Amino acid sequence: MGITKVAQLAKDAAIQLAAVKSGIKNKALSDIAQSLEKRGAEIVAANQADLKRAESESLAAPLLKRLKFNEAKIKEACEGLQSLIDLTDPVGTTINATELDRGLELYKVSCPIGVIGVVFESRPDALVQISSLCLKSGNAVLLKGGSEASATNRILTEIIQDASIQAGIPDGWLTLLETRADVAEMLALDTYIDLIIPRGSNEFVRYIMDHTNIAVLGHADGICHVYVDRHADLEMALKIVVDSKCQYVAVCNAAETLLVHEDVANTFLPVVKGALEQQGVEIRGCARTADIIDVKAATDQDWATEYLDLILAVKVIDSLEAAIAHINRYGSGHTDVIVTGNKARGVQFMDYVDSADVFLNCSSRFSDGFRYGLGAEVGISTNKIHARGPVGLEGLMIYKWRLVGDGHIVADYAGQDAQTFTHQKLPKKFPV
Amino acid sequence: MGITKVAQLAKDAAIQLAAVKSGIKNKALSDIAQSLEKRGAEIVAANQADLKRAESESLAAPLLKRLKFNEAKIKEACEGLQSLIDLTDPVGTTINATELDRGLELYKVSCPIGVIGVVFESRPDALVQISSLCLKSGNAVLLKGGSEASATNRILTEIIQDASIQAGIPDGWLTLLETRADVAEMLALDTYIDLIIPRGSNEFVRYIMDHTNIAVLGHADGICHVYVDRHADLEMALKIVVDSKCQYVAVCNAAETLLVHEDVANTFLPVVKGALEQQGVEIRGCARTADIIDVKAATDQDWATEYLDLILAVKVIDSLEAAIAHINRYGSGHTDVIVTGNKARGVQFMDYVDSADVFLNCSSRFSDGFRYGLGAEVGISTNKIHARGPVGLEGLMIYKWRLVGDGHIVADYAGQDAQTFTHQKLPKKFPV
Repeated sequence: MGITKVAQLAKDAAIQLAAVKSGIKNKALSDIAQSLEKRGAEIVAANQADLKRAESESLAAPLLKRLKFNEAKIKEACEGLQSLIDLTDPVGTTINATELDRGLELYKVSCPIGVIGVVFESRPDALVQISSLCLKSGNAVLLKGGSEASATNRILTEIIQDASIQAGIPDGWLTLLETRADVAEMLALDTYIDLIIPRGSNEFVRYIMDHTNIAVLGHADGICHVYVDRHADLEMALKIVVDSKCQYVAVCNAAETLLVHEDVANTFLPVVKGALEQQGVEIRGCARTADIIDVKAATDQDWATEYLDLILAVKVIDSLEAAIAHINRYGSGHTDVIVTGNKARGVQFMDYVDSADVFLNCSSRFSDGFRYGLGAEVGISTNKIHARGPVGLEGLMIYKWRLVGDGHIVADYAGQDAQTFTHQKLPKKFPV
Repeated sequence: MGITKVAQLAKDAAIQLAAVKSGIKNKALSDIAQSLEKRGAEIVAANQADLKRAESESLAAPLLKRLKFNEAKIKEACEGLQSLIDLTDPVGTTINATELDRGLELYKVSCPIGVIGVVFESRPDALVQISSLCLKSGNAVLLKGGSEASATNRILTEIIQDASIQAGIPDGWLTLLETRADVAEMLALDTYIDLIIPRGSNEFVRYIMDHTNIAVLGHADGICHVYVDRHADLEMALKIVVDSKCQYVAVCNAAETLLVHEDVANTFLPVVKGALEQQGVEIRGCARTADIIDVKAATDQDWATEYLDLILAVKVIDSLEAAIAHINRYGSGHTDVIVTGNKARGVQFMDYVDSADVFLNCSSRFSDGFRYGLGAEVGISTNKIHARGPVGLEGLMIYKWRLVGDGHIVADYAGQDAQTFTHQKLPKKFPV
């Protein structure tokens, strides 16, 4: 079946799925969990095949680790499904209700976006997470996973499709795309697909953004900053810098640049250098940093680079305002941290730094859907519209305006003897 | 000054404006109103010049009417400003607050989108409306109006700039673009501009969508339907069809296609034909329609056409499901109406029709920001993300995640003795 046909069926399924009752969706999620457990051996065997192939193709160790999907991972996936069942159905919520005039009532009601195309990296857990988030939120989904995980992704998709469709979810709501050509074809289908969520390298996300008219939710760069203010508790700052940089270097919410207020630079820089070098971090510093500690020189390019590696750019800054200006200029609007004992300066930082996630006295690594309590995430967005930061169920929702009248026409509200609108808030929910 | 520079200054202004207090914004809106009144004669004179030029260029009468900006229009604009002052400031609202762990608190707080580019048609009232909505919502704006209104737009912009900047709004927040070349340049500035809102012809909106990587909020087509169900009160249906088609034919929320259930077609079609022809409407009907009334034959192209004129396509339909399928296939996701006395069928229509505005027993012409009580609108969106239908203040907002800790690091929540998150709802608002 061609991708156009797949997308068309997904659109049809999405329209049906938008109106499927919570009970059926939760039953489907629960049946998927049961089926994943029951067919655990098949999943593990498929994953073994992927792993074997990946080893023979000398895939790097961290990638192999991410590829692995064993009994423990199945258990985790099932726990994730259970926590999703426990969440309130986000569909059909009356966001607000207004009486426009007597008998003419307007309801703004949440509904699914429609058809979502997700392209994700090698982790097969992401497939279960994303498809179950889409199911709960009533969205149809076209998924493309990493080719390294193709056998695992295939069996997982089959299990999810079978269990969900048997539980009453419309056929066609979930399709696994197999090739890069499929993805390229999908990017042109703006008639059927409402949103693309790409998860992968910067180059890949940029490629997607440049090659489609469909709305894209995601992030290319994650150039995150930690700013150590002159009022910072330096012991706390040290802990936060090390965690933000080193706790997991290869991810988008790891810190790439450290900004230090000049009043504390002499004290803080030698200490932070020692701690970071112990973790194997290379420091690249501005001229003022180099006056205080022995470091490699940073160039302008360093301020704009996402290393995703054991490298940290360091700059001495003469004011809070200068830190904010640096972050707004070089940052990627992802996650930025201030360490300060002065709350007003903390709030000032959070007010003026134009990023999705602005943190006071904690590590940049907290910006994540699970840690935020969103259940799970389909990705992290640095967009300025729709959804920002970690995107969970809520980010997959939009709304419809439902207007209920009793023969009301606009002509009565125009011209000389125009009736006026009442515009009263209604306490009601839809349907009334 | 080049457009890049203008956009860069707008971005700087946007960051400052995002943190400007409500009192200052309301003072600015009130000062703008005062200044518009005080300088009324200048405005009217500028508008006279535009009108004179337009007449000499033989602009069509309806366009001339839209171009006119006299004392009455100034008064209306000032009333609009007052109603905007009365609305709650949408910036800084805590959407939700969650304790992640003791002392680690997450706040999802509303904030402006940033810099918005608006390209609108000839009506100068739109300039006052859009710029004041942007000011209240804390967004900087680049505006391009119709060239017919250039003198009026220039004086209005000058008044708004002067009054707002004197009241404490950051310089650079509002700029009027003068040429189409400026617009083309703006479309490339995705570093500085966060959202484009085009208002104009279908071709124009499509052109914008096809020529920018910036998110676009708006609608190309407005192919709106009225479906007269077999349970419809036919007297009510007649009123609604006539109003939806004829109350103002040149607008996006006017009906273009009438769908009639076969059970009522014999009774309803002759009546509706009479009423519509009295209003000068040409009917193009399907074969089944032509069996009942004498009409021009509709082709498949008619179902997909936005006439914006005194023409209505009519189709006889054999079920509610067929009506829904027709609308989802040929509609533009704008506004669609069902007339029925059966509430369950009304709800079914609203559940399954995939449009921004789904109406029961009232005219399609109600889909409008003013009628919805949004204060005013910057446009109507058929997007499936961010904002749908009439877009007022709320559609110009996004949010930031503000996380406040006390030295919290992620390493403590990983590995063997991982601390667990509490994920408790907090009743607090930010700042705490």
